[in-house]
Amino acid sequence: MIRKLSTTDKDFEARFSTLVARDASVDPEITRRAEAIVQDVARRGDEAVLEYTNRFDRLNLKDMSEAIVSREEMKAAFDSLPPDQKNAIETAARRIRVFHEHQLEKGWTITDEAGDVLGQRIRAVDSVGLYVPGGKAAYPSSVLMNAMPAHVAGVPRIEMVFPTPGGERSQLVLAAAYLAGVSRAFTIGGAQAIAALAYGTKTLEAVDKIVGPGNAYVAAAKRYVFGRVGIDMIAGPSEILVICDGKTPADWIAMDLFSQAEHDELAQAILLTPDAAFAEEVSRSIDRLLPTMPRKAIIEKSLANRGAIIVTRDLEEACRVADTISPEHLEISTENPEKWVDHLRHAGAIFLGRWSVEALGDYCAGPNHVLPTSRTARFSSPLGVYDFLKRTSIIRVSEQGAQVLAPIADVLARGEHLIAHATSACYRLKK
Amino acid sequence: MIRKLSTTDKDFEARFSTLVARDASVDPEITRRAEAIVQDVARRGDEAVLEYTNRFDRLNLKDMSEAIVSREEMKAAFDSLPPDQKNAIETAARRIRVFHEHQLEKGWTITDEAGDVLGQRIRAVDSVGLYVPGGKAAYPSSVLMNAMPAHVAGVPRIEMVFPTPGGERSQLVLAAAYLAGVSRAFTIGGAQAIAALAYGTKTLEAVDKIVGPGNAYVAAAKRYVFGRVGIDMIAGPSEILVICDGKTPADWIAMDLFSQAEHDELAQAILLTPDAAFAEEVSRSIDRLLPTMPRKAIIEKSLANRGAIIVTRDLEEACRVADTISPEHLEISTENPEKWVDHLRHAGAIFLGRWSVEALGDYCAGPNHVLPTSRTARFSSPLGVYDFLKRTSIIRVSEQGAQVLAPIADVLARGEHLIAHATSACYRLKK
Repeated sequence: MIRKLSTTDKDFEARFSTLVARDASVDPEITRRAEAIVQDVARRGDEAVLEYTNRFDRLNLKDMSEAIVSREEMKAAFDSLPPDQKNAIETAARRIRVFHEHQLEKGWTITDEAGDVLGQRIRAVDSVGLYVPGGKAAYPSSVLMNAMPAHVAGVPRIEMVFPTPGGERSQLVLAAAYLAGVSRAFTIGGAQAIAALAYGTKTLEAVDKIVGPGNAYVAAAKRYVFGRVGIDMIAGPSEILVICDGKTPADWIAMDLFSQAEHDELAQAILLTPDAAFAEEVSRSIDRLLPTMPRKAIIEKSLANRGAIIVTRDLEEACRVADTISPEHLEISTENPEKWVDHLRHAGAIFLGRWSVEALGDYCAGPNHVLPTSRTARFSSPLGVYDFLKRTSIIRVSEQGAQVLAPIADVLARGEHLIAHATSACYRLKK
Repeated sequence: MIRKLSTTDKDFEARFSTLVARDASVDPEITRRAEAIVQDVARRGDEAVLEYTNRFDRLNLKDMSEAIVSREEMKAAFDSLPPDQKNAIETAARRIRVFHEHQLEKGWTITDEAGDVLGQRIRAVDSVGLYVPGGKAAYPSSVLMNAMPAHVAGVPRIEMVFPTPGGERSQLVLAAAYLAGVSRAFTIGGAQAIAALAYGTKTLEAVDKIVGPGNAYVAAAKRYVFGRVGIDMIAGPSEILVICDGKTPADWIAMDLFSQAEHDELAQAILLTPDAAFAEEVSRSIDRLLPTMPRKAIIEKSLANRGAIIVTRDLEEACRVADTISPEHLEISTENPEKWVDHLRHAGAIFLGRWSVEALGDYCAGPNHVLPTSRTARFSSPLGVYDFLKRTSIIRVSEQGAQVLAPIADVLARGEHLIAHATSACYRLKK
């Protein structure tokens, strides 16, 4: 059912290209509708947000105040959880917090020989909006992963929006929001929620940055408001790539591939192994295990459309192929996995060894599960505290320093025909 | 000529809003034409690049190889400079390099109680494309400021593109490219150059990230290829805001405002001072000095359209107004300027004291002159080494660690109805 390739196939390059090709096209009709909603909310504020929310989520809110969820309600949701969930989410939150605290950065200054002080000030962004998808895609782990870095960065105001179609609120989502330091939540979603965060309404003050995953309307709205506010990356379908030496149990690898494929029919799960017999074994595991999976229909489509088992000449070649893909998640399921890390330049997260399975990283290892997809690991990074910090350059030129620097600026500014620049620098020269 | 406001005016809020309002609209016709060019280059490669380059820049290139400028040619350009320019650009390059070296970051790992190793690997991006505008806007300082952070980050391949309308090459631009570690340059520009960098051609291998300023076509092309490659921010018009206690010579402040206004009719130059008499004095300096400026027409339009002198109740209020504007450049031209830094949350760069004039920062103080414009300093940072680094999470769960983490992942995955995630985690549990 899953396609099988070998790097020694004559048509490997062509089949591989097809496999990793992505349709990044955006539906212009969705864009048009999302933008119309954003413009309407920018104009009419709360009134428009309420109308869209009531219509799309089948609610009957009379006033935006009914959409507000306070920290007290989040705490109540946390307190109401059964002990195993309470313990699990608390442990995950703690581990995520500890990891992200290592990403905190301090400002610095240097002083040059003329006594000029130059430096970089680092501050948290003032306010952040967190989008949390509703319904079946309401993932508490995603709340932890998106809000915790902002909270650790020290963002004083974190507003969460989460649609509640039919009025159903996920207690786990609210518990996660409580643990991750969300200041306040609103039961609104879609392009209207993004617009409220970006433009502000009477009830919801505009934020400086918006993060979190969403459907095509949410993505279109985020693209539209980008520049007015900061946004995180617009994520593509999730991806896993496993490099295996053939000595991990085949069922483990099959299930690791399933764990990505079960997200979405467009998700991509690929195994690279130099062991052809192991490739066959994993293929048989897939066939045997698939019928036992609650999401077997999604997994089957995902593996058929976008999955592959690729037999490589050796592990070195597997690393080269992996780098071409630059995957979001990369498992190195081999002996001495450290050996291969330096061969792999591009990946969102690298899981080393047979016990380091993606699902642990998705929930509770500590590092963020919001990772660059669609080959963007070539130039971008996991979501982190750094995404909620901003830097300001500090320049304190002394009178003495100005005597050194102004003549240099003068020459360079004149070279660019910018005479006001040159003059303003030279005004600082002692006569 | 420059508008004068006072925060005590009855209509201050309305006039201030008009002053700082921005037209961020994008011309759809420019977008359409830029995208058509990008698609054509993606399809036809070098051939299309040559056609557009010959047409738009009035050249007669027969082959892309004629567009290549090697490092040897860059060095020759540097060697050919007169001594004052040579010395100035070398000093500027050195100071910029030293400052940016402080932005280098190291990866790290932590080990938890179960022996799990978690960390963050930091690597330079593989390749960067640097866009340098041509003609009158060919600024060597901009080459230094854009390329040096990439060079300091350790980017092994830095490709520069710079249009040469009519065949004119700026020796200062090439000298700056030499000092800033540019690997190779191409005399191409416009949307066609952005497309070549993003999609690659036979002669110019695709890069992972594109930075540098450009006209509306370049901006539209960058927006279009974003996602396929990384891009820097699309900058708005440049801005200066000066807070002055009234004790800096009025001519100095007037010239500082000019130095921003001379860039562009849309540039914004604003003075905030609690000293009404000083405000008048600066206004008179502006009127007196303006006729002496080579770019007086641009300065006059810029100050008339977007400039202002605002009298505030006190310096505290000046800081509050400044924060609303979140300016790209902020001069604190007062006694004890440090006192005010903590009052100012949002700015690209803060220049402290009467000798710290923006022109010094533009060329040679050391910090980057590519700064967030249009209020984006609320959530973004100066261009820096960090823009050319990418992080990868490292997750090495031990067998023992898996026994701790898998049960947590199991509970949380089941809470999200992701059974393959739960199963793949639990496979790692010892029976």
